[in-house]
Amino acid sequence: MFRPRIITLTTDFGQEGGFPSALKGVILSINPHVYFVDITHSIQPQDVFEASFTLLVNYGYFPKNTIHVAVVDPGVGSERKILCAKTPRGIFVGPDNGLFSPILENEANAAVYEISNSKVFLPQISRTFHGRDKMAPAAAHISKGFPLEKLGPRLVDWKKLLWPKPIFEAGHIKGKVISIDRFGNLITNITGDDTKRIDKVSQVAVRIKGRSIPRMAHFFSEVPPGELLAIVGSSNFVEIAANRSSAVRVLNAKVGEEVIIQKAEISK
Amino acid sequence: MFRPRIITLTTDFGQEGGFPSALKGVILSINPHVYFVDITHSIQPQDVFEASFTLLVNYGYFPKNTIHVAVVDPGVGSERKILCAKTPRGIFVGPDNGLFSPILENEANAAVYEISNSKVFLPQISRTFHGRDKMAPAAAHISKGFPLEKLGPRLVDWKKLLWPKPIFEAGHIKGKVISIDRFGNLITNITGDDTKRIDKVSQVAVRIKGRSIPRMAHFFSEVPPGELLAIVGSSNFVEIAANRSSAVRVLNAKVGEEVIIQKAEISK
Amino acid sequence: MFRPRIITLTTDFGQEGGFPSALKGVILSINPHVYFVDITHSIQPQDVFEASFTLLVNYGYFPKNTIHVAVVDPGVGSERKILCAKTPRGIFVGPDNGLFSPILENEANAAVYEISNSKVFLPQISRTFHGRDKMAPAAAHISKGFPLEKLGPRLVDWKKLLWPKPIFEAGHIKGKVISIDRFGNLITNITGDDTKRIDKVSQVAVRIKGRSIPRMAHFFSEVPPGELLAIVGSSNFVEIAANRSSAVRVLNAKVGEEVIIQKAEISK
Repeated sequence: MFRPRIITLTTDFGQEGGFPSALKGVILSINPHVYFVDITHSIQPQDVFEASFTLLVNYGYFPKNTIHVAVVDPGVGSERKILCAKTPRGIFVGPDNGLFSPILENEANAAVYEISNSKVFLPQISRTFHGRDKMAPAAAHISKGFPLEKLGPRLVDWKKLLWPKPIFEAGHIKGKVISIDRFGNLITNITGDDTKRIDKVSQVAVRIKGRSIPRMAHFFSEVPPGELLAIVGSSNFVEIAANRSSAVRVLNAKVGEEVIIQKAEISK
Repeated sequence: MFRPRIITLTTDFGQEGGFPSALKGVILSINPHVYFVDITHSIQPQDVFEASFTLLVNYGYFPKNTIHVAVVDPGVGSERKILCAKTPRGIFVGPDNGLFSPILENEANAAVYEISNSKVFLPQISRTFHGRDKMAPAAAHISKGFPLEKLGPRLVDWKKLLWPKPIFEAGHIKGKVISIDRFGNLITNITGDDTKRIDKVSQVAVRIKGRSIPRMAHFFSEVPPGELLAIVGSSNFVEIAANRSSAVRVLNAKVGEEVIIQKAEISK
Repeated sequence: MFRPRIITLTTDFGQEGGFPSALKGVILSINPHVYFVDITHSIQPQDVFEASFTLLVNYGYFPKNTIHVAVVDPGVGSERKILCAKTPRGIFVGPDNGLFSPILENEANAAVYEISNSKVFLPQISRTFHGRDKMAPAAAHISKGFPLEKLGPRLVDWKKLLWPKPIFEAGHIKGKVISIDRFGNLITNITGDDTKRIDKVSQVAVRIKGRSIPRMAHFFSEVPPGELLAIVGSSNFVEIAANRSSAVRVLNAKVGEEVIIQKAEISK
């Protein structure tokens, strides 16, 4: 049975203005047999890190031949390249600004190409919207089997995103909040596996803004409503949450806030 | 001709973060022949009533074999069950927290199952995102014909949502605002049919916050711009609106506000 | 190979409430072989101009047999007609309130019909939601090949939107801001071609709110971060932007703000 090719979209275009739909129209005009999934169009304008993080925690759930188009492109019109990266877990199309670098670190055997062959672009290219005029049609042609080697030269280097890594010190891990979700959960850059370098997950405590969360929870309702908890979240990062409430409101914390993981004290 | 199976999604995940797309990726990885319709991802965080109301007024417009997945799940990780309810008007998958109970009251002959068979779950289950790890893959397997009887035990009881029913008193109906839409219309829990217990729809008046709306309108522009009107809305509930304006702004009303329906006074 | 018929949706329904999904459910119940693209549901409530502009700059990117449904309908329930307009670039379904008039000005050979044949409506029609009860089912029947001549009488006249045209005066063009996008770019009603009546695009200056932008840029990063620039944007309108910043914030400008294009002064 025919399987449509899946193309995901991750952009900072917002829901107003119809910009995501222009990409879809361009793609469907080239290949009507694709199926779109919007990852999000609500990335903060020009926030490459947020786009990168959002795609990082989502791409693994898609079929392996999915094409992921990501357009957060503050350098549009300048000399920044456009990339196509093929990995065993998907094909990635977007600007060369580091957006895909955390994924490419995960995925061995990536083949990365510059997309410069004007055959895969629209005939008329605007100055400000290469997502629509270059990346979308390139993705459409790729979805129809356009050979990646003909997109442009193969690259051995590309822009790397400065990903904030947690710091392991004697007896504790120093990390920070890298994302805040709609529920007010604070997502840190410390993974569940990282915490094991201190102790079993159930034996570590979390400190943030002078508050101490005595141990990691298994689910939200383990603590009374309104109370803070720490938990290994759905993307394997340690998150700080508040049961039936919002940690960001309770703590008045921001992205960048320091978070410390240390051994839990023995309960009295 | 091949008909893709429709799966609708109703969540409180928001548009940021890509959570709805993770559900879609999981489902497409199991069954690429589905077609998604987002009912909404803008339910207020953990507001089971809003999710229930939104699905209630929309599910009837979908083909009868549609699978409706709804994930507003404040009890995630605790002991709350996950349900699959089959009715003549669709299949419903989501947490057992009352979300589907108003629909199940409408639909005779519902067969309700607990989803507990780990065969329909992802191999790895996070603590905080059962929408992605349990409900989405279960819905995908159901869309491929997985027998409902094998999902888990059939249930005869499930959580009921406390639905605010209007109160019928001598000469009037006492109801309340249960939802406010984007246009600022105040949707009440009183249906067009309810009002007939007072008089013909055209012969009833509506009181709210000390204001009286002398009779029900047939369309918005029946009253001058900016003026309040009451109307039987698109889901058969009495709504309070303001022509080319916003009733919520005019009245400064909130969800929960009391609304009285009574016989219209004879015009002088 | 089977090609699903594309239906786009442009509405002021918002993301909450599930109104767009009701249209989709109605359409899929009549024709399951359609493919939806949401242009936007974030039009400001009842803002026919914004809907018209958004559709105008997007419809050209879609396949020629796309059906564009647009529902911004402050006159719902009154005597306003519902239209179906067939042009060489698509079929348009929506209220007769001017929404499609800028497109119909562009497209020669449009055939415009009133949709009044109740065969293409839902059996039950609400007072407030003709998008769901009339326009969606009509579009679904059209997508299945329902003859346009049977929708209702052919029209030779329809409502025209008052589109603000730029004024050409001796040595300058007077226009205004007609839209502000998510990035804070101010989109004017002056096209790149219009500016050629003053001088080559690279030789014109732009004035707004007492500020002068000495010449048109080719890309955002041509000026230092935070600085204003003017550019021919992705829809061929002159836009005022701020590199890696927001022109609307820098200028505190609103829709309607006057914009002057004049010959650039010779650099000293």
